[in-house]
Amino acid sequence: MARPTPLSGFPEWLPEGRIVEQHVLDVLRRTFELHGFAGIETRAVEPLDQLLRKGETSKEVYVLRRLQEDPDAPERGQAGGQLGLHFDLTVPFARYVLENAGHLAFPFRRYQIQKVWRGERPQDGRFREFVQADIDVVGAGELPYHVEVELPLVMASAFAALREIGLPPVRILVNNRKVAEGFYRGLGLTDVEAVLRTIDKLDKIGGDSVVGLLEEEAGATLDQATACLELASISGSDEDVVDRVRVLATEYGVQHELLDIGLAELGQLVRAAQDRAPGVVVADLKIARGLDYYTGSVYETVLVGHEQLGSICSGGRYDTLASDGTTTYPGVGLSIGVSRLVSRLLGAGLVRATRSVPSAVLVAVSSEEDRERSEAVAAGLRERGIPVEVAPSAAKFGKQIRHADRRGIPFVWFPGPADAGGQADEVKDIRSGDQVPADVRTWAPPADDLWPRVVPAG
Amino acid sequence: MARPTPLSGFPEWLPEGRIVEQHVLDVLRRTFELHGFAGIETRAVEPLDQLLRKGETSKEVYVLRRLQEDPDAPERGQAGGQLGLHFDLTVPFARYVLENAGHLAFPFRRYQIQKVWRGERPQDGRFREFVQADIDVVGAGELPYHVEVELPLVMASAFAALREIGLPPVRILVNNRKVAEGFYRGLGLTDVEAVLRTIDKLDKIGGDSVVGLLEEEAGATLDQATACLELASISGSDEDVVDRVRVLATEYGVQHELLDIGLAELGQLVRAAQDRAPGVVVADLKIARGLDYYTGSVYETVLVGHEQLGSICSGGRYDTLASDGTTTYPGVGLSIGVSRLVSRLLGAGLVRATRSVPSAVLVAVSSEEDRERSEAVAAGLRERGIPVEVAPSAAKFGKQIRHADRRGIPFVWFPGPADAGGQADEVKDIRSGDQVPADVRTWAPPADDLWPRVVPAG
Repeated sequence: MARPTPLSGFPEWLPEGRIVEQHVLDVLRRTFELHGFAGIETRAVEPLDQLLRKGETSKEVYVLRRLQEDPDAPERGQAGGQLGLHFDLTVPFARYVLENAGHLAFPFRRYQIQKVWRGERPQDGRFREFVQADIDVVGAGELPYHVEVELPLVMASAFAALREIGLPPVRILVNNRKVAEGFYRGLGLTDVEAVLRTIDKLDKIGGDSVVGLLEEEAGATLDQATACLELASISGSDEDVVDRVRVLATEYGVQHELLDIGLAELGQLVRAAQDRAPGVVVADLKIARGLDYYTGSVYETVLVGHEQLGSICSGGRYDTLASDGTTTYPGVGLSIGVSRLVSRLLGAGLVRATRSVPSAVLVAVSSEEDRERSEAVAAGLRERGIPVEVAPSAAKFGKQIRHADRRGIPFVWFPGPADAGGQADEVKDIRSGDQVPADVRTWAPPADDLWPRVVPAG
Repeated sequence: MARPTPLSGFPEWLPEGRIVEQHVLDVLRRTFELHGFAGIETRAVEPLDQLLRKGETSKEVYVLRRLQEDPDAPERGQAGGQLGLHFDLTVPFARYVLENAGHLAFPFRRYQIQKVWRGERPQDGRFREFVQADIDVVGAGELPYHVEVELPLVMASAFAALREIGLPPVRILVNNRKVAEGFYRGLGLTDVEAVLRTIDKLDKIGGDSVVGLLEEEAGATLDQATACLELASISGSDEDVVDRVRVLATEYGVQHELLDIGLAELGQLVRAAQDRAPGVVVADLKIARGLDYYTGSVYETVLVGHEQLGSICSGGRYDTLASDGTTTYPGVGLSIGVSRLVSRLLGAGLVRATRSVPSAVLVAVSSEEDRERSEAVAAGLRERGIPVEVAPSAAKFGKQIRHADRRGIPFVWFPGPADAGGQADEVKDIRSGDQVPADVRTWAPPADDLWPRVVPAG
């Protein structure tokens, strides 16, 4: 077999990079669990017809077939449909909720960290296989607004926990669909979808083009289009934002109940965020999110200094996550693009692992006959929670020390003669060269050396 | 959307089941890392031609296509081949080693815990999507025998750590291909593959049929066939096993260098196992393993009392895990069928989680106006590592307590009046009904209540 080459869009990390990714995943899991979210996993496949219910993503889906199956009778799920790989964790979660509703207690708080697949053209930060980390709270029938306040703050807390490994600051940009829709309707615009779709392009095409498009595609007058653009230009991290929207509305003679509700909600979110995560949450009235099922708050997150990477954590409120005809399940959710984040942390040299293997200690082997003695030392240290490996060969000690050094293993343990019963063991810190007597029942490495740590690079 | 039904062969767990699975995965990860194995993940897809190199599994592979792709120009990897989902973690690992050989230090110790997919007919313990947990040690050019002793003992240590949650005892059955091959060749049999394939069926078809098949398909005389069957009937957990093989060989006049090497190796493994994991490792001369690339030790593992479940952890030594034409990479590896194991633990009611949500505490909300005060309590407890959720509504306290009770949350926290500055807070253990004053800066639940635990059921 010739040396294989990587597959574009399917990222893989070397062991050191995986330590960074694993650390990020551990921090997310711990944060989510500290906030009472239960972890679930769903299967990788869903019936194709379910995956295609939201038309937008149809082109991205990977469809499965068994190699040996009859091409005229393709692999089917129970419902008779073909199977595809999930492209997000929301569609599978909605199905999981419906399937297990009788066994879940609502509101149901869940997190889910899994790979998803999209057949898109790979670009920087855009992959065909990537890890998402989602949190959602789903109610049966109803779900109070305060969940829309809580969830971005859970994510803020996760990002705060990642600051210490070298993650740049984040800005969580929030908006409320009710504000936008109330404002547009109060202006007299009725094709709200078309306005949102156009505003969503603001950063890409600029204000002048947005005004033109609003006139062409959303039936807006120049005055209406200008008002929409002015609304989209409002942003800020305190309640002043709400006042500025009110001033704008008065200026254009806009009144709408939905606008009032939306502004009250947005104000509540901004107030709580100022208190609990100062400087992180920014109300940004141009945030629209492409997906049409959001009905309240919407969220996007940028990494400060890396804005061109796009959003690393997005979501919102949907009044109908799922429905079985009898009960409707509203939800609020956010999804972190873990692969995008980790790929940037590694690619931009922002973080590193202190070593690439778990072992804190390499136990030297003086001769193959004495290997079991080294294994006994290793077992004794492991029992006390210290990660250890035993040297692969009874080479000269200098070579065994180099073996540890190449892997970043900080300590080499030298068992004493068999008849010393462990009393003549010594351990060397290969960075300082210090070698001291050591007892397998009491010795421990400094806490910073026990496991590989993830730290800011450079 | 009507209520969906599960997809056969694609297991999913309710939150409580996922806590059990996650605990098993955590124990495996910790055990592997304590033994110095570095974690990696590989992409879910491999070029189809690579997946089909071992002919046996071709029928099980899921092939991918993008929904919108031209059926005459299917989705291809760089090498121009179609892509399929991996059916184990060995093929991807071999590719990873070749691709990254220049960045890895050999012998390379890695663990890998991921889902794999096989389009087999689903049965009890046999899934189409399941989690495997693999450890392998791979050398560049050479790999000493002691790795074949070490790896099953790492797995024994993982299973020992799972005993405390209610895992039944395991037996790791070991054999050595060199013993079998040396014995067969010494007997005068040359089609070693055919003999191994037949012996592998012993448990299914019985001794008489095996003798018949050996005569028919492996060109054995009745005498040779009987000798092979007698070899296969030898098993035991001490070195006596080696002596019994030697006696049998003498009886049939069998002499072969490979037999001597194999028996020396097997003896070394049994001796070390008696010392380091007494009673767990059993030499069993009928273990053949279907796959033809094993060249030394082979391993299978049964759950005592659940033998009909099949092997839950298998593997062996392969002299050529991968080769790039210049360097050959020998390896030793074992793979745990995590889904099979967890599905049995849950299905047979052997284990349970102490609750189905992470939260140890529900903070009550006296009125929606006071929600931020409850959130402040929650934040204070979380800062001290206590998992907490805030009540979803300011219902009557009795209803909030029932909300906690339904989820198994042991404690409900009642914030005192705002002007008491946290001095009048109380916490209730809803199991005993005891309610006591509590300070958010000092109170902690008993260690057993802090996180959900996985414990033997019943």
